[in-house]
Amino acid sequence: MKARALAEALDGRVTGDADAEIARAVHPAEVACERDIAIAITPDTVRLLGASRAHTVLVLEGTELPPRQFGTTIFVRRSRSNLPAITQIFHHRPTINLGIHPSAVVAPDAVIGEDAMVGPLVVIGPGAVIGPRSTILSQATIEDGVTIGADCLIYPGVRIGWGCNIGDRAILHYNVSIGADGFGYVAGRPGAHETAEVAGDCQIEPRRNEQQKVHSLSIVVIGNDVEVGALTAIDRGTLKPTRIGSGTKIDDHVLIGHNVEIGTDCLLCGQVGLAGSVAIGDSVVLGGRVAVADHIKIGDRAVVAAAACVGTNIPAGAVYAGYPAVPRSEAMENLKLLRRLRRLMARGQNIPTSVA
Amino acid sequence: MKARALAEALDGRVTGDADAEIARAVHPAEVACERDIAIAITPDTVRLLGASRAHTVLVLEGTELPPRQFGTTIFVRRSRSNLPAITQIFHHRPTINLGIHPSAVVAPDAVIGEDAMVGPLVVIGPGAVIGPRSTILSQATIEDGVTIGADCLIYPGVRIGWGCNIGDRAILHYNVSIGADGFGYVAGRPGAHETAEVAGDCQIEPRRNEQQKVHSLSIVVIGNDVEVGALTAIDRGTLKPTRIGSGTKIDDHVLIGHNVEIGTDCLLCGQVGLAGSVAIGDSVVLGGRVAVADHIKIGDRAVVAAAACVGTNIPAGAVYAGYPAVPRSEAMENLKLLRRLRRLMARGQNIPTSVA
Amino acid sequence: MKARALAEALDGRVTGDADAEIARAVHPAEVACERDIAIAITPDTVRLLGASRAHTVLVLEGTELPPRQFGTTIFVRRSRSNLPAITQIFHHRPTINLGIHPSAVVAPDAVIGEDAMVGPLVVIGPGAVIGPRSTILSQATIEDGVTIGADCLIYPGVRIGWGCNIGDRAILHYNVSIGADGFGYVAGRPGAHETAEVAGDCQIEPRRNEQQKVHSLSIVVIGNDVEVGALTAIDRGTLKPTRIGSGTKIDDHVLIGHNVEIGTDCLLCGQVGLAGSVAIGDSVVLGGRVAVADHIKIGDRAVVAAAACVGTNIPAGAVYAGYPAVPRSEAMENLKLLRRLRRLMARGQNIPTSVA
Repeated sequence: MKARALAEALDGRVTGDADAEIARAVHPAEVACERDIAIAITPDTVRLLGASRAHTVLVLEGTELPPRQFGTTIFVRRSRSNLPAITQIFHHRPTINLGIHPSAVVAPDAVIGEDAMVGPLVVIGPGAVIGPRSTILSQATIEDGVTIGADCLIYPGVRIGWGCNIGDRAILHYNVSIGADGFGYVAGRPGAHETAEVAGDCQIEPRRNEQQKVHSLSIVVIGNDVEVGALTAIDRGTLKPTRIGSGTKIDDHVLIGHNVEIGTDCLLCGQVGLAGSVAIGDSVVLGGRVAVADHIKIGDRAVVAAAACVGTNIPAGAVYAGYPAVPRSEAMENLKLLRRLRRLMARGQNIPTSVA
Repeated sequence: MKARALAEALDGRVTGDADAEIARAVHPAEVACERDIAIAITPDTVRLLGASRAHTVLVLEGTELPPRQFGTTIFVRRSRSNLPAITQIFHHRPTINLGIHPSAVVAPDAVIGEDAMVGPLVVIGPGAVIGPRSTILSQATIEDGVTIGADCLIYPGVRIGWGCNIGDRAILHYNVSIGADGFGYVAGRPGAHETAEVAGDCQIEPRRNEQQKVHSLSIVVIGNDVEVGALTAIDRGTLKPTRIGSGTKIDDHVLIGHNVEIGTDCLLCGQVGLAGSVAIGDSVVLGGRVAVADHIKIGDRAVVAAAACVGTNIPAGAVYAGYPAVPRSEAMENLKLLRRLRRLMARGQNIPTSVA
Repeated sequence: MKARALAEALDGRVTGDADAEIARAVHPAEVACERDIAIAITPDTVRLLGASRAHTVLVLEGTELPPRQFGTTIFVRRSRSNLPAITQIFHHRPTINLGIHPSAVVAPDAVIGEDAMVGPLVVIGPGAVIGPRSTILSQATIEDGVTIGADCLIYPGVRIGWGCNIGDRAILHYNVSIGADGFGYVAGRPGAHETAEVAGDCQIEPRRNEQQKVHSLSIVVIGNDVEVGALTAIDRGTLKPTRIGSGTKIDDHVLIGHNVEIGTDCLLCGQVGLAGSVAIGDSVVLGGRVAVADHIKIGDRAVVAAAACVGTNIPAGAVYAGYPAVPRSEAMENLKLLRRLRRLMARGQNIPTSVA
């Protein structure tokens, strides 16, 4: 790709050699050859340009360039979409040779859409439907009756359990689990945690108290444009589907329990855990490692800060944080409070005595 | 299945058309066709019956039905076991065509029990033994010398490392790891964390301090009737097995470190993490995301609330919560304390000054 | 192996029958036959020797043995390296028959080094390079252009994405994900979390606000002697590689986000989560379940206690703990403070009133 074409694609302008060839977009510190373009659209990366081996650079309009000569400079206007747009151009979508790899084990009645690709050692069960132009990379499992929409990208090792539905343009990363059983049991007689709810302790008989499994009869339904990170698990529902709304993006190592319902355009960052029957609205953001207890409801556009543990419902538009999660202002006051009390102690003011 | 037969199986009774055909048990909001039966054994779901498309419903004896006509109603008595019993009837156990799929790579001396099934692209190593009627679904790995009992169900992508023993009726979900190495190292000289233990800081030399691996020589031993959720890891022991007692149920994304011993009938909810050499009694319940530090002991029938971080031993029958985990009553007092102090601050009562 | 040879290998001495055959090293409680040697180099395990079935034992010089006769006793000097050395001797490295298993799907132009082994049902993509003596166990995925050094051990189900580089002597455990996409999106207009940063709440319009993907153009680069635990995910970088330094050891279920850089000889215990662009120095120890927010820097030889949630930079050599993480001394004062205040309340001293 020539610099001129890249500038045009980004609605920007070029100075210097507009015919420079560009093969790769990199951080200024990673420039390895003349065909690398250094992307410097943050103050941090602009500072690195002087010492960079870059011959070609991409910066924001108005950037003060370090006092050295670049062969080619592309200027783009400040925009939220710069990084998505730039990386979209240089991104290469994994693919395989067109068609169905001979080592794949595909049920005779599975439907493989037009221009869909099925990679080596994939298993596709009876009645499964793969939409047009979808790619199933190697060693994935698509069980009986699964339907996958158009233009999906399923990475190696993904498991999709019987009957689950995936919309269009889904991206499922390595070793994702869609449709494992929910975690539901009923002990033969009240168990330790039930007794504890009532009595505050667990004075139950010591003989065995076997757990009976509540089977998961339903499926997982995933909308369009959903991305699911590596090693994430989304369990199937008991009597109704676990649902993920269109446009929702889920990071690695997220656990979504049975019967959970999530709206559209949410962000669930890494290691988030949602217990069974949680209900989450639209455009909700859950920071990394957030935990949500079962049956909790979180309203539209709410934000939960990283590592918060949510045990109460959260209204629409609210911002929560802390352990347990409370409105963020309250969480910050708690921290301030502790700091003030600790300072007193450090100054030798013995709180207990004074208070007494 | 006819309504009459279902009612009998659940020891209930039918009103209306006892010959109605039932194909699927669903939540009242999910009824899609006449052969769906709406399960409404909670107040929440009973409320939905009026607006449900349900033709056939299952409710508890004494339920006040909404003022509309159902074709068929099944009444069952209130019982802890209703949901396990209903879902057991409609559950369909994944299976494959009887026998060993030709694409599986099975060592010549592996023993495949009577009526056991080995799915496509499974690998079974030398000396492994698969018990009668056990099903190994696709793409799983059963390494050398593993023994698996009768009637087990091993989902795609499960890895079971050399020598590990699995009892009868185990269910191992997608991509589970049984028998990876434990995480044990000794640095060539005292490392940062060891120095910190003694001196409170880490004034060690900056030159490299390589870690030497403590190899895991032992195995994982899992009892009967154990279920292990998707993407859970149970590491092998160093000089003795990591042990999971019969009847214990483990959710997704749980991490069980080397040398851990867990008793019977425990529940370990999602994302629980047990560091090395933790010992857990019988019928213990660990809520979601509970963390337990290495070598900690938790007594029989103890309950640890979700997201608690356990750094001390917990006696039998106790209920713990919090960060760090303390008896639950204490954890609740801590929260109350903070709320009271914060209220004071909010009312303009300057604690530091007053206390001083 | 004879006792004499074992003693020599450990620079120790034998009493009793130096010709005793030893086949397996076990915990004193696990001795099953005469060829098992009981390893008792801690007070706990020495106490168990009396009741052990052990015929042959290994103890530290100066150990007071229980008053019973062992056939053979090996004495070794106290040393940090005892357990690594003993387990190294009895460890058996997983292997497969030399060469490339016929069921593996290997691109014609992939380079398989001398004495390297490729197990059943492995997929190796175009241009990939496997170093000499490295073993790829079954069902792993090595994508296009991946390079793996010498003497590596790749367990079943590992996925290594296009272009990633792995150094020498790496050990990657079951179902590890190397090189999945980073979690980066930009919403079409400011999202809930951005608004919250500014206004404290999320008064944004309720219409849909699609996320645009920031593609991950770079790779993961892993140094020499790195071990990665089961089910861990290391995501690729956006414009520069995610880097793991030589000698660093990573436990199971760890999440390492895009652009993260980790130095040499670090220990990352189970369930640690590092958000994007975190930078970690050399010889750092992160306890189990530690979370680190994006762009945070942690200096050389710092130690972070288990379950701490890090939201600020940590200087070299510091010891941090708590939620949020603060210097450990401060974290301990916070706990003491709460305990003191709670004791007052328990004694009936009403803090609010007194303070007022």
